[in-house]
Amino acid sequence: MPQVRGARLEAAVLSATLAELADTGYAAFTMEGAARRAGVHKTTVYRRWADRETLISAALVANVAVSVPTPDTGSFEGDLRALASDLVAWLTSPVGGAVVRVMLTEAGRLPGVAAVKHALYEDRFARAGVVVGRAVERGEVGSSVSAPAVLRALVAPFYLRMLVTGEPLDEGVVEAAVAVVVCAVRAGVL
Amino acid sequence: MPQVRGARLEAAVLSATLAELADTGYAAFTMEGAARRAGVHKTTVYRRWADRETLISAALVANVAVSVPTPDTGSFEGDLRALASDLVAWLTSPVGGAVVRVMLTEAGRLPGVAAVKHALYEDRFARAGVVVGRAVERGEVGSSVSAPAVLRALVAPFYLRMLVTGEPLDEGVVEAAVAVVVCAVRAGVL
Repeated sequence: MPQVRGARLEAAVLSATLAELADTGYAAFTMEGAARRAGVHKTTVYRRWADRETLISAALVANVAVSVPTPDTGSFEGDLRALASDLVAWLTSPVGGAVVRVMLTEAGRLPGVAAVKHALYEDRFARAGVVVGRAVERGEVGSSVSAPAVLRALVAPFYLRMLVTGEPLDEGVVEAAVAVVVCAVRAGVL
Repeated sequence: MPQVRGARLEAAVLSATLAELADTGYAAFTMEGAARRAGVHKTTVYRRWADRETLISAALVANVAVSVPTPDTGSFEGDLRALASDLVAWLTSPVGGAVVRVMLTEAGRLPGVAAVKHALYEDRFARAGVVVGRAVERGEVGSSVSAPAVLRALVAPFYLRMLVTGEPLDEGVVEAAVAVVVCAVRAGVL
């Protein structure tokens, strides 16, 4: 089954690419390093991906395409907590942290990476839309609540800590963000 | 008055350094470019600053040391609005944007730049402390309100837009952030 072997090989190289990115950062990343880590010859890598930008974009697409189910806990607050916890778990994982940092460096301007970023944000906003829509249906929140505003308010504190202040992302951060969003939604300011 | 001339020359070079950084970004920045922009010979720059890291750190220190007065509008909401507007004005200015981007790239790990960053955050948290302290004295907010939590909640949306989503930072953003913080403080969740 050469096709299965090919798919497995590709998955191994893409996964090694993310691990390598997490270790070296975008500027110092090389295709040779990713090949070494995947245990394959570098020509095997060059045969499939023309250059490091193509390889990095493909690795990001593969990572981001793993679909995260939209939470459905039965309450608006529970769903927000699940959305926030998922994001914090991803941001604090070595691979997730690397993906975010690569997307936000100069690599974010590469067409392939910019498309991944766009798809990732679209997906996040869509999931927030489902969560808010269900809360409206249950009568928990008013129909004028803006799902994009809810999502931005929920995730902004995590990015602030990760990218600006360097403060840790722990469970207390999730609870604090959820509490602020719930209160702002109730007050009609989101 | 050679001392005054020296100080003026230094100020001109440091200001040109920030303008150059805003144009080229950190990676492509050169001392020659800064000298050219300041209209001085590059040896004049090298005589005062040993290398580009020293020059960049000095320029950031000079920019960040410009003391911003703590707002005192008479109300908690007014003071929050003033703090937020000041920050947004700085983030959206070419120089402020460049300073933030440099501090958050690999340059942020240089000892000089890390110290500037630390001083900048200390100053911001101190001003938030004064604003919250006055609001407590006026009886507008409870004494258990956390000034650092207030500041983080206030500024997080601006950095999210600037660094992550690339959405614009307009006046509506300031009003939305202030409304969320006021509501969270009243609800006792900050």
